[in-house]
Amino acid sequence: MEHLKDLLVNNKDQYLNELFDLLRIPSVSADKKFSADVLRAADFVAAQLSAAGADKVQLFQTPGYPVVYGEKLIDPSKPTILVYGHYDVQPADPYELWTSPPFEPVIKDEKIYARGSADDKGQMYMHIKAFELMMKTNSLPCNVKFMIEGEEEIGSQNLEWFVKGNTELLKSDVVLISDTSMISNEHPSITTGLRGLSYLEVEVTGPNRDLHSGVYGGAVANPINILCDMISSLHNDKREVNIPGFYDNVDAVSAEERAAMAQAPFSLDEYKKDLGMNDVLGEEGFTTLERVSIRPTLDVNGIWGGYIGAGAKTVLPSKAYAKISMRLVPNQKHEEITELFTKHFLSIAPPSVKVTVTPHHGGEAAVTPTDSHAYRSAARAIESTYGKLPIPLRTGGSIPIVTMFERVLDTKSVLLGFGLDSDAIHSPNEHYGVWNYFKGIETIPYFFKYFSEKE
Amino acid sequence: MEHLKDLLVNNKDQYLNELFDLLRIPSVSADKKFSADVLRAADFVAAQLSAAGADKVQLFQTPGYPVVYGEKLIDPSKPTILVYGHYDVQPADPYELWTSPPFEPVIKDEKIYARGSADDKGQMYMHIKAFELMMKTNSLPCNVKFMIEGEEEIGSQNLEWFVKGNTELLKSDVVLISDTSMISNEHPSITTGLRGLSYLEVEVTGPNRDLHSGVYGGAVANPINILCDMISSLHNDKREVNIPGFYDNVDAVSAEERAAMAQAPFSLDEYKKDLGMNDVLGEEGFTTLERVSIRPTLDVNGIWGGYIGAGAKTVLPSKAYAKISMRLVPNQKHEEITELFTKHFLSIAPPSVKVTVTPHHGGEAAVTPTDSHAYRSAARAIESTYGKLPIPLRTGGSIPIVTMFERVLDTKSVLLGFGLDSDAIHSPNEHYGVWNYFKGIETIPYFFKYFSEKE
Repeated sequence: MEHLKDLLVNNKDQYLNELFDLLRIPSVSADKKFSADVLRAADFVAAQLSAAGADKVQLFQTPGYPVVYGEKLIDPSKPTILVYGHYDVQPADPYELWTSPPFEPVIKDEKIYARGSADDKGQMYMHIKAFELMMKTNSLPCNVKFMIEGEEEIGSQNLEWFVKGNTELLKSDVVLISDTSMISNEHPSITTGLRGLSYLEVEVTGPNRDLHSGVYGGAVANPINILCDMISSLHNDKREVNIPGFYDNVDAVSAEERAAMAQAPFSLDEYKKDLGMNDVLGEEGFTTLERVSIRPTLDVNGIWGGYIGAGAKTVLPSKAYAKISMRLVPNQKHEEITELFTKHFLSIAPPSVKVTVTPHHGGEAAVTPTDSHAYRSAARAIESTYGKLPIPLRTGGSIPIVTMFERVLDTKSVLLGFGLDSDAIHSPNEHYGVWNYFKGIETIPYFFKYFSEKE
Repeated sequence: MEHLKDLLVNNKDQYLNELFDLLRIPSVSADKKFSADVLRAADFVAAQLSAAGADKVQLFQTPGYPVVYGEKLIDPSKPTILVYGHYDVQPADPYELWTSPPFEPVIKDEKIYARGSADDKGQMYMHIKAFELMMKTNSLPCNVKFMIEGEEEIGSQNLEWFVKGNTELLKSDVVLISDTSMISNEHPSITTGLRGLSYLEVEVTGPNRDLHSGVYGGAVANPINILCDMISSLHNDKREVNIPGFYDNVDAVSAEERAAMAQAPFSLDEYKKDLGMNDVLGEEGFTTLERVSIRPTLDVNGIWGGYIGAGAKTVLPSKAYAKISMRLVPNQKHEEITELFTKHFLSIAPPSVKVTVTPHHGGEAAVTPTDSHAYRSAARAIESTYGKLPIPLRTGGSIPIVTMFERVLDTKSVLLGFGLDSDAIHSPNEHYGVWNYFKGIETIPYFFKYFSEKE
């Protein structure tokens, strides 16, 4: 592996420049006005895959954005690794909170600042470069397939459709995904659990037009006030989610597992200090780490209604809106939760308003095994480059496709992520450590090596 | 008065065209980007006042937008009427809900559609035209002064300062204001009571930056959820405002007065139908007409936070905001209510968030007498042109300057408004009946006539 590392060291500038080119493409899948850019990002990934040495590189069209596919099959008797990643990114607004423009990557304090630097362009692109290094050093030890999609940030709307139609093409022994984070560079960890998601949008209509709050105020249901009432009622005093049936299928985590979790290095004081908060807030009876991993939640991701410009306007608006999402844990089916939410939310609407609920997207929670050859290979790879074994950790984010791969392809995933929680993914000033980028490129070939070896 | 009416009939097109020129000026006082337009509207009003025959027309500079003044003093032994109006308008957004652009006036179904058509350019301009008619027909029966301001929609921030500095100039026997509405064209009414206002903006801060709702959701106070909790708690189950001390000074209205109010023609079914609502909502124990007139209220006029673009973004935002206003009734001091709100709102913030409250503006409630010569003159004027006596009515809107005129100038006001509640003032598609515009111009000289006569 030394030869490979030498080559990596000699190519660092180029590997950064290529990633920067990709980061400059504003491939925001959530907003149609960026659709040409999303397609441009797909083309870029395909071209780089080919250049790295992949065969059969092509864009598979879907009802939405295309899936980039490529492969290198060296020996049918060897195992096959399916690398998954995504080339789309979250919206970058609010733009004014970025210290540098989100689609003009720059390095500051040894971190790459750009939308998608960590989630997931930076982490996905490590795999293309690691593959190139193995090709150039003649050290690719097994078969590899790449499936890079463009709709992860909008719920992978068409990926299941694509996977179902191409089960033979995608046949593999493990799905390898770098789209998660570690505790810290000093405390490497592997994500073994991910929460599911149900994301909805609600609309509350009071009067059929905006009204003067003086002439009508007091007699007419104000949809903002009503929406606040309804949202407020979704938690009880213990900050439990107050939707009938919401917790019915939640897996109770054993005292042993909770005790093991409590061993993870974590400082509540540092957590609060990092976030500038006097206190945390969450479900009674659970620690902060438990609240973000083994417990389901409900958060409002956006709210708007009435006059939100400068100054004052005495309007009693016709409509108010909110985007609401729930993070789910294993055994909570996202379709069921979406239905429970919808039914409950409609049922609590007073007769003076009209309410609609529109599901956006959802995904199941996932727990990945730690007693598998794939997990052990990943742990050994990290040990080889970080100098210590990683901690297995259930975390809060969602990658709904992990359960889908298991269901449709009957293939388990390994979540070999190199980001940090502090990377500000989905936020202004997203960044990714230059160190992490190269550490990922260095670590991935070890995973290929160990996974190809007989146990 | 027949000669005057003939002249009016012959000049209708011109009177409409002039008003349209004024309506084309987007004089939005709440938004600094329109400041040149606001000044342009002031110049326009001054020029028209001069053209109509007023003397000493000038713009009085203030720390904000200027006050347009003009006068015609014919005889110191005659009474003096001080006409008040405003040339600024509410913001026009959301623009997309207008069926025609807000600053391109058009007549549809015999109504003038434009921002400010009813509030207050259309109603204010009636006075300039009525004055011109009296001048041209040599029938001005008393002295008249005009004071047209440009900051009514932002709380008349500098009017008191101006009035205090010019008490001698503004000395008069009555203030005449057309900035209110009637029950209907078939049921003319005169506003005798107006609610006060306290308008504030609140900001709730959770974490110091936007976060990924999967990674942090469940452990960190979401400022939108907290803001909803706080807003929701501002009403109790009876839809009473839940702020300690809020009702302490509210005048109890006598059973007799409530019985008289109940005689006003009002159909709850038509009200609900007009607003497209299945039900009204308001304070327990009061009728709809009472809720919008003799009772104080609290409404959210705007709310925003998190991701409000297209699609989905799983953000846990750093901040959430709301604009909140309270309509007040006589004896509730707006400064006291602003203080009560601020103190209470800060007190209910959980330790996991930081909250700030910023007052926007406020004004006192007012009740105008019905047993005065001025009121009786207004009632007779309406009887002369509408064919029936008007109903005295307390309504929900606020014109804080009415109490200020009484306090500073010791002069009572008459609220001779010609609009309708359905004019959609402060809303998209504001309009003003062509019939109402000309009926106002016709009625005002009758008020001048009757008010100048000895009783």
